[in-house]
Amino acid sequence: MPAFHFHHPIEIRYSDLDPQGHVNNARFLTYFEQARVNYLINLGLFSKEQSFLEIGIILAEATVTFKAPVYFSSAPRVGVRVSRLGNKSLTMEYEMAEANGTVYATGATVIVTYDYSTQATVPIPATWRAAIERQEKFFNKDLP
Amino acid sequence: MPAFHFHHPIEIRYSDLDPQGHVNNARFLTYFEQARVNYLINLGLFSKEQSFLEIGIILAEATVTFKAPVYFSSAPRVGVRVSRLGNKSLTMEYEMAEANGTVYATGATVIVTYDYSTQATVPIPATWRAAIERQEKFFNKDLP
Amino acid sequence: MPAFHFHHPIEIRYSDLDPQGHVNNARFLTYFEQARVNYLINLGLFSKEQSFLEIGIILAEATVTFKAPVYFSSAPRVGVRVSRLGNKSLTMEYEMAEANGTVYATGATVIVTYDYSTQATVPIPATWRAAIERQEKFFNKDLP
Amino acid sequence: MPAFHFHHPIEIRYSDLDPQGHVNNARFLTYFEQARVNYLINLGLFSKEQSFLEIGIILAEATVTFKAPVYFSSAPRVGVRVSRLGNKSLTMEYEMAEANGTVYATGATVIVTYDYSTQATVPIPATWRAAIERQEKFFNKDLP
Repeated sequence: MPAFHFHHPIEIRYSDLDPQGHVNNARFLTYFEQARVNYLINLGLFSKEQSFLEIGIILAEATVTFKAPVYFSSAPRVGVRVSRLGNKSLTMEYEMAEANGTVYATGATVIVTYDYSTQATVPIPATWRAAIERQEKFFNKDLP
Repeated sequence: MPAFHFHHPIEIRYSDLDPQGHVNNARFLTYFEQARVNYLINLGLFSKEQSFLEIGIILAEATVTFKAPVYFSSAPRVGVRVSRLGNKSLTMEYEMAEANGTVYATGATVIVTYDYSTQATVPIPATWRAAIERQEKFFNKDLP
Repeated sequence: MPAFHFHHPIEIRYSDLDPQGHVNNARFLTYFEQARVNYLINLGLFSKEQSFLEIGIILAEATVTFKAPVYFSSAPRVGVRVSRLGNKSLTMEYEMAEANGTVYATGATVIVTYDYSTQATVPIPATWRAAIERQEKFFNKDLP
Repeated sequence: MPAFHFHHPIEIRYSDLDPQGHVNNARFLTYFEQARVNYLINLGLFSKEQSFLEIGIILAEATVTFKAPVYFSSAPRVGVRVSRLGNKSLTMEYEMAEANGTVYATGATVIVTYDYSTQATVPIPATWRAAIERQEKFFNKDLP
């Protein structure tokens, strides 16, 4: 499996913890989301100053596989990569792990490219395709 | 597909909404979780007065399929059912929908039965198996 | 002190709880916020179908006094009232309590009336003043 | 007013934002809380590996004054200091600001020292008093 070439560190917040003393399961999607937005910023496809109505993606599906509990003392980072570029959708994969290698969770989201102004799905923009291929293709031979 | 015989209503909170004006994607797992706990309470397998360290389950996997955006004006309920009873794990399925039938999301979680005191997985307790079968079996022929 | 004449029930979510087993302190502002929006909806000053960019208020200050821990088994409601109507600002007071009278928290927010389109503070609209006085004045003699 | 000698940086999460495009008001208490826990860790009064049932404090009151909206592009840090050491309670003050000086919010919490095992308030432990005085007193002449 190809490695992750983008990572975003996550600070565990006290408010992420639940009565079982570890990070609540729903927060994993929050962490993946935070890493996803930063992946797009890193590729120049979104900027922190833009409106999120211009980000042009919609989540169609999300999956999380929980491998180990995350505690307040954990210092994970979330690896993000695009593993599939379709016509109007793409798949992003995630791996949340400690620097020492302990994997807390893996996951994937199916993302549809969307124009909020026309409220319709659109083909993946050429700039997105180019930037994502530049980021992933060298490492990830099964991308088109 | 068998119908859902337990439903838990969700009040959309302002704080569930994100800059795109609809409910944030991670909240769907929060809604499923809230419905799941209430499903167990309804079956007598947990009570609101118990410690959550006694609930005896761990999430191994969670999936959400997003069908339609949820707004502040939405009044969904989450249907919950057990679709598989294994030896040490079970699968719960979810459907978040408006009373009029609009489906916002579906999902599933693989749940492992766990003893927090010994920190080990355990077979599904007989009381759980009996209560879940009573709730689901009549309607759900593929349960053992 | 005048009584509260509007109440909004709050369902405690599992995800509101923190590692100390009770509701996290920051959630109290979330509960007050949820009650505040519903107070405005109840008075006809906002509707669930409107954009929150049209709600026309900004928080200037918030205070919470914590009286008793809130647990998963709690079933509180939040009382809301306007205790002060100024020129461009008003004060809302909150009381979160169980139906049996146990008070979990009290609080207040200073709210500034604001026009998001011009990005400037504005005098409290006449319709707001009338509706709030109708709701509160009879009971609350110190309102103008 | 004495300066803050401890600061904790906050990463704004997409999920902290609300439909008005800025950070939701309740999150400010979450940011203060995260900074507060790290202040205690920094003083050696708590460690990330401890149970939060051993932290020995309870919030009695919290106040936030909102000065400027916080956006996804903001990179604030929260200054924390103890401004009052009573017998069984202390006051912590907070200032959330950008490195360039823009102040987003100020606040304070009244905190009661508490023993979770006996479920009773306790005098501020001598080790806490010493560590806090060491951190604050030199700069903050009005502490005892």
